[in-house]
Amino acid sequence: MSSEVAYFDHAASSWPKPPEVLQAMQECMLHYSANPGRGSHQMAVKASRVLFETRKHLAKLFKIKNPNDISFALNTTMALNQAIKGFVQAGDHVVCTAVEHNSVRRPLEYLKRTKGISITYVKTNAKGELDIEDVANALTDKTSLLVCSHSSNLLGSILPVEQMGELCRKKGVRFLVDAAQSAGILELDVARMGIDMLAFPGHKGLLGPQGTGGLYIAPELELEPLLHGGTGSQSEAIDQPTVRPDRYESGTQNTVGIAGLNEGVKFILKETVERIHRKEWELTQALMAELQGIDGVELLGPDLGQNRTGIVAFNVNQADSSEVAFILDQSFQIAVRAGYHCTPLAHEMVGTLERGAVRASVGYFTTEDEVRRLVGAVKEIAKHLK
Amino acid sequence: MSSEVAYFDHAASSWPKPPEVLQAMQECMLHYSANPGRGSHQMAVKASRVLFETRKHLAKLFKIKNPNDISFALNTTMALNQAIKGFVQAGDHVVCTAVEHNSVRRPLEYLKRTKGISITYVKTNAKGELDIEDVANALTDKTSLLVCSHSSNLLGSILPVEQMGELCRKKGVRFLVDAAQSAGILELDVARMGIDMLAFPGHKGLLGPQGTGGLYIAPELELEPLLHGGTGSQSEAIDQPTVRPDRYESGTQNTVGIAGLNEGVKFILKETVERIHRKEWELTQALMAELQGIDGVELLGPDLGQNRTGIVAFNVNQADSSEVAFILDQSFQIAVRAGYHCTPLAHEMVGTLERGAVRASVGYFTTEDEVRRLVGAVKEIAKHLK
Repeated sequence: MSSEVAYFDHAASSWPKPPEVLQAMQECMLHYSANPGRGSHQMAVKASRVLFETRKHLAKLFKIKNPNDISFALNTTMALNQAIKGFVQAGDHVVCTAVEHNSVRRPLEYLKRTKGISITYVKTNAKGELDIEDVANALTDKTSLLVCSHSSNLLGSILPVEQMGELCRKKGVRFLVDAAQSAGILELDVARMGIDMLAFPGHKGLLGPQGTGGLYIAPELELEPLLHGGTGSQSEAIDQPTVRPDRYESGTQNTVGIAGLNEGVKFILKETVERIHRKEWELTQALMAELQGIDGVELLGPDLGQNRTGIVAFNVNQADSSEVAFILDQSFQIAVRAGYHCTPLAHEMVGTLERGAVRASVGYFTTEDEVRRLVGAVKEIAKHLK
Repeated sequence: MSSEVAYFDHAASSWPKPPEVLQAMQECMLHYSANPGRGSHQMAVKASRVLFETRKHLAKLFKIKNPNDISFALNTTMALNQAIKGFVQAGDHVVCTAVEHNSVRRPLEYLKRTKGISITYVKTNAKGELDIEDVANALTDKTSLLVCSHSSNLLGSILPVEQMGELCRKKGVRFLVDAAQSAGILELDVARMGIDMLAFPGHKGLLGPQGTGGLYIAPELELEPLLHGGTGSQSEAIDQPTVRPDRYESGTQNTVGIAGLNEGVKFILKETVERIHRKEWELTQALMAELQGIDGVELLGPDLGQNRTGIVAFNVNQADSSEVAFILDQSFQIAVRAGYHCTPLAHEMVGTLERGAVRASVGYFTTEDEVRRLVGAVKEIAKHLK
């Protein structure tokens, strides 16, 4: 089926992947899918080595000094749950933005219900752009954590993480960045940006397989682990070991997935984040320029010419976003996503809480021809869906 | 490297896998590695369908009525953390056995420290065999949960889950089974065995890839989710949806891993658990019969002729288990595991807390020739390591 599909759902999961990703996964399944860190035989050692290599490449990409400060997770959601639930204490005040994904909002609201924390959601403008002053004003003496998505998964806007990191350092607030839409796409430098925790997916911008992701935790922070269990180290201790990454990696890791992720990260280090972002930006600009010329199409997010990630959300006349997405899929073989994208507060700000939005997201392998196909299809749809 | 390795570490991770497992993973990576349940386009629908098919096959294997009562997890540890932390309340009393893995013990001890629960560890005999009367005596009016490993990951002994389930039903206690060493190897029937929650790995007896596992939760139980986040459903709600499996599956699932797991489970349904267990049992009997004839070798676990899973743990004279495993790996290309196997209380009972144990574990693809190689190697080692 996939050979003819024009895939515009990279913000959910990137596809296709560089061929090396699958090759590395095959190699792992056929030759060393033993348990990493749970045995000293050659296959287990090889598995451990691939995990460490991947950590090393991720550390290089994110400018992290010690690769062992990165722990792997099933997905970004798990990494964010580890960061938020492991760090925030009863009575704390947490600041985040109104464009956060439910993977940030729901853990925070859970802690509000069960631990009595308080939360301030700082609004952006309707294009998803944040005024740093509004963040500064939201921080109080009780604020322990600022959580921010690096780029809105609905609007594609890029949030000023560097300024936020600076603000956090001044105020003694810890800073957690959700890089779900930016890892592998935008520059990330944990030291320069003052990032204390960085949650990232493996299967989006990093071009690895699903089932991978991770969390960087600054060396001086010690979180309560989200998972307690076997670590292959200090087995006799009742508590989790303090040694990293073991403390945050209980149970068998996804070696085959991480072997694939390793190749995705290597691909990005070679191509460079700058080139990838530039290409994705050019594709979005071409797409937006055409879409905004179509009668009845309303674009969300930053204006043409502004910086953004590969996300272009829009609506067509008064049509429900699901209907548009359905027609794109069924009649044009074009894969986009419709609905709320797990970010209801963002829709509230933008005014699309009733019908959601169609989200077309490009990736490094998206072609200009695919963009033309999408534009042509939306033109057709706009004519008929009034 | 792997072509000449005799692999006896199936209890940590099975290898090799049936060829269909890798084929399905390739197919997924190449043609539909989109985000399941997060879009309605064809590739996303195909991804969702594979997840549902896998649930259906798992439900058939474990005799679960509604496949949606199974949620996927990164590994058994994550499933056990979900079950234990999601169910146990402050002040509860929990009973488990002394052969539990750290993936049960550490979450319980964490709740003891933070929520003031109490725990009773019921001892087995030195062979890992449990007297059901001891369990009955441990249950009190405050006991909310009994947790039990179906088979000891050190001793290979099989615990009487059916009797325990019956006991739990009589006493109104919920029953959580850790099937890390039994899923795909021993019969599991949640209804007949009175199992309320069943945690299982995908990459051991079920012959799928690492990064997979899951938890069955009885329909009438509602747990606090371990992860809060995006579910692709009820996005506008502040809390997790109650609908299953969404409630317990936040964030992107490991579609490619689950596609592989699906084939592993199908393989098992075709071969049957009975035949798999019989073959593994015969292999262990052949191995044990030979090993116990070697001067200086001491076997752990149930006696020859008794029922057990594919685990045969032993020590050689007074040698440290790591030394034996190292020689097996380096001089004989035989992969076993040494040490504590994340189950310190079991070692305490058995008297091997100082030197650990060598664990050789067979799988369905282990050959008699490999068993002979292992026996020959241990003979050599026993001669030289006094």
